[in-house]
Amino acid sequence: MSTIRVPDVVHSPTQDCEKLKKAFEGWGTDEKAIIWVLGHRNASQRRKIRETYQQLYNESLIDRLHSELSGDFRKAVIWWTYDPPERDARLANGALKAKMKDIKCLQVIVEIACASSPHHLVGVRQAYCSLYDCSLEEDITSAVSRPLRKILVGLVGSYRYDKELVDIDVADAEASRLREAIQAKQLDHEDVVYLLSTRNVHQLRATFEYYKQRYGNDIDQDIEKCGSGELESLMRVIIRCLYSPEKHFAEVIRSSLVGLGTDEDSLSRAIVARAEIDMMKVRGEYFNMNKTNLDDAVKGDTSGDYKDFLMTLLGARI
Amino acid sequence: MSTIRVPDVVHSPTQDCEKLKKAFEGWGTDEKAIIWVLGHRNASQRRKIRETYQQLYNESLIDRLHSELSGDFRKAVIWWTYDPPERDARLANGALKAKMKDIKCLQVIVEIACASSPHHLVGVRQAYCSLYDCSLEEDITSAVSRPLRKILVGLVGSYRYDKELVDIDVADAEASRLREAIQAKQLDHEDVVYLLSTRNVHQLRATFEYYKQRYGNDIDQDIEKCGSGELESLMRVIIRCLYSPEKHFAEVIRSSLVGLGTDEDSLSRAIVARAEIDMMKVRGEYFNMNKTNLDDAVKGDTSGDYKDFLMTLLGARI
Repeated sequence: MSTIRVPDVVHSPTQDCEKLKKAFEGWGTDEKAIIWVLGHRNASQRRKIRETYQQLYNESLIDRLHSELSGDFRKAVIWWTYDPPERDARLANGALKAKMKDIKCLQVIVEIACASSPHHLVGVRQAYCSLYDCSLEEDITSAVSRPLRKILVGLVGSYRYDKELVDIDVADAEASRLREAIQAKQLDHEDVVYLLSTRNVHQLRATFEYYKQRYGNDIDQDIEKCGSGELESLMRVIIRCLYSPEKHFAEVIRSSLVGLGTDEDSLSRAIVARAEIDMMKVRGEYFNMNKTNLDDAVKGDTSGDYKDFLMTLLGARI
Repeated sequence: MSTIRVPDVVHSPTQDCEKLKKAFEGWGTDEKAIIWVLGHRNASQRRKIRETYQQLYNESLIDRLHSELSGDFRKAVIWWTYDPPERDARLANGALKAKMKDIKCLQVIVEIACASSPHHLVGVRQAYCSLYDCSLEEDITSAVSRPLRKILVGLVGSYRYDKELVDIDVADAEASRLREAIQAKQLDHEDVVYLLSTRNVHQLRATFEYYKQRYGNDIDQDIEKCGSGELESLMRVIIRCLYSPEKHFAEVIRSSLVGLGTDEDSLSRAIVARAEIDMMKVRGEYFNMNKTNLDDAVKGDTSGDYKDFLMTLLGARI
């Protein structure tokens, strides 16, 4: 389900580092070589490259990339080169430190808490503590106001059971509980927060299916009817990330491309975060939604090395 | 700060397993040999012994201990032999499945969430999912009623920053916030739950110190004045586990020994859980509290192999 192409026979980390070093040196930077190496390595290979680079040249690969590259290309390559939990801790911190903390910004935290494995989420929290000398929850509590903070702290604290196990009686009962909360416009009710932050994703998907069967609408349509405030918007992102992360990321990519100009940060985040997880499915969902090809859309809205890098992560042979 | 005595030169896991196997076989079980081996090995050595025993004899060491031993001795040895996160997951499950879920029972969960490292807490949650096919929080939510569940779910979800870093302005402000909550008898207020479940323990200790300096009493004395219900009792255990785990466990041991009969489960839990962490300090606190020696008190209230095992964990040369 990953789109990146890792060759059957991969060069040693030392060979990769030598190629990168060569790309940095001399007259101008050889961006193609950087894409060629890093764009075709998985997370554990990239970790080894980072470590080996540090040992060989006594400098941080990330710092070197930062000084050699620029713009959206630099940001995307650096996000890709970080260990995924560290990348997400940095993204979460960026969201919490942003001046405009709208839902588009806070959704990064929802993605980490609801569209990742429990193991990854814990890794992000660990990385957050190491990087920022406080817990992720402390920063959420001080940066976000009620009722959103209650929900985000709950979600971030989750450690969900990660196998497919569904209790249909629970799904039935909790679909009713969600209905009550929606009708009473109490989306931040304690029961709703518990349910969304403690149940395993398969259980929650069954609950949402029950909801649809019994009440006729998708739950997020009914939440939309509750209002158009921040709480409703956040709740819809949460449901989407839990129900179908691939639909969520297809939508993130779509929104980043529509309209005048491209939202490169969102585009890069979605592709970098999912290229090794479920990008094939995201591509399928994108096509279902838009009846156009995701790869063509990305190609049409980007250019140069940035385009080449994203297309490499999408599996194109550049 | 550990009290167990691990020899400078430790036998190989295979030699330890052979000694254990020999202790199980023949006429009657050689309890002394079991104590001799397991009582002098740290957690990672015990893990290797468990793994090696399984490989060598194709049977589970825990199962064999279960069939060879009995009573309080068996329970204590088995708790000691489990991986610490698995042991605590089992203890938490036992507490949640108990018919009488009083504070003495639920305090096991508080100990795991407030008197352990963030890493251990995550390990317990992971083990809980593996053992019981659901998250620890799901079981807390279904087994415990409001307002205790709100607090326990919050605490269990924590991943605290684990270094010593204190912001005195935060300590000052949060001491006031706690005072307000105590005066309004709103111990389960969202702000209180956040504070207790997101701040690092050093920060919280500074907050409790500020509280005492400013308002004259220890915070747990003021909580006691709020009432004698479950919420107040739970809150006092939480404060104690965060403020001074060693005092808490000294108190657990004291309560397990006072009165008619001994509460062996609590006694074993405290000694097994802390023997490798801070039992030296617990011993000191016990002496400060009771002006008697912890080791003498344990010796006086226990007997036979059970006594020998606990004394071994306390560092005695049996």
